[in-house]
Amino acid sequence: MNDFRILTIKASVFADNDARADELRKQLKDDKVFLLNLMSSPGSGKTTTLERTIETIGEELSIGVMEADIDSDVDARTIGETGAKVIQLHTGGMCHLDAQMTSQGLAGLGTEGLDLVVLENVGNLVCPAEFDTGASKNAMILSVPEGDDKPLKYPLMFTICDVLLINKIDAMDFFDFDLEACTRRARALNPDIQVIPICAKTGEGIDRWVTWLKEEIKNWNA
Amino acid sequence: MNDFRILTIKASVFADNDARADELRKQLKDDKVFLLNLMSSPGSGKTTTLERTIETIGEELSIGVMEADIDSDVDARTIGETGAKVIQLHTGGMCHLDAQMTSQGLAGLGTEGLDLVVLENVGNLVCPAEFDTGASKNAMILSVPEGDDKPLKYPLMFTICDVLLINKIDAMDFFDFDLEACTRRARALNPDIQVIPICAKTGEGIDRWVTWLKEEIKNWNA
Repeated sequence: MNDFRILTIKASVFADNDARADELRKQLKDDKVFLLNLMSSPGSGKTTTLERTIETIGEELSIGVMEADIDSDVDARTIGETGAKVIQLHTGGMCHLDAQMTSQGLAGLGTEGLDLVVLENVGNLVCPAEFDTGASKNAMILSVPEGDDKPLKYPLMFTICDVLLINKIDAMDFFDFDLEACTRRARALNPDIQVIPICAKTGEGIDRWVTWLKEEIKNWNA
Repeated sequence: MNDFRILTIKASVFADNDARADELRKQLKDDKVFLLNLMSSPGSGKTTTLERTIETIGEELSIGVMEADIDSDVDARTIGETGAKVIQLHTGGMCHLDAQMTSQGLAGLGTEGLDLVVLENVGNLVCPAEFDTGASKNAMILSVPEGDDKPLKYPLMFTICDVLLINKIDAMDFFDFDLEACTRRARALNPDIQVIPICAKTGEGIDRWVTWLKEEIKNWNA
């Protein structure tokens, strides 16, 4: 298992988060580091999806992970087992990360030599959607047990994401989830959103997700 | 179906939320109205649990419901079907309700003649835990697919709640959920928390939940 440390990040004092985010994004582009901001509700399967992702592309790409949580180091331990470079970020109660907090995390992680850094944001469909972290792309996971009506209730999250992973599709019949209705609702908010059904537990759909991710990383470095 | 209106509530300008909350709680006690603040992640089953609750005690108690959401009126429509008095609150993007916003909601709903008002808070395990709404009691739902480690990651929510409903227990085997471990983690934060496993879909455990709720309402009016 990879060692990791726990970094308590400080709330930002900068008023203009968008400018900070653009600055960070430019720096990452110069450094050829692709930063993925991964968001979802608590318990949607962000960490399991990351494990699968690292398992699939960890040989070709050098990957770092920032695990943001109010408390605990459960997820950093799990990701450490995969061999990826990992840091646990504690937000001190904050419900989201902004660009300045993300910068602190990246400095703590150390990005030299990394191709891909994933920020596993705090489990929350509301607040993280409001703050540009400086990421290259935004991804979200909606898990089947949460229900297909979530784009109606949390529209901003679906609007700002480039890709929507619909996880736990093995539970689709159990929970009477309408994939077509969910996709339609997400696309009504964001016509360009990629919708990829997956099951992180069994690995179903991970190939399509990883293909998307590798293509975006290629474009980022072009 | 009961008619309902949509009220867009305004962000509060009061600095001292705790004082406002105590004031509201006192008013509700004088009026013999019990206010339950119901919180959870998105998609944990708050609305279905409410439907079951109203079905079970709607004959003996006069019930009102405030559905708080960023957007949509999906839940207010569902609750309207039960015959309960209902109002949809739109938070204008806000991730939680405080006491002053709750007061606006109560005024919009109209509490005269009601024994029980349920505030279905915004789906979020982080921010709603930080703001006293003035409720008589706080309840939360954790659903089985979210995982038994959530008390470790969102400790404040488990600390401030009087009762924890563990929903979707029919999916316990499917998701490998450890009820005993989850209960132990919740009680480590909050030794007094009541833990009640339920399945809102099938009705399992609802009797125990409703017994708890009726007892609390009785104590409130004593």
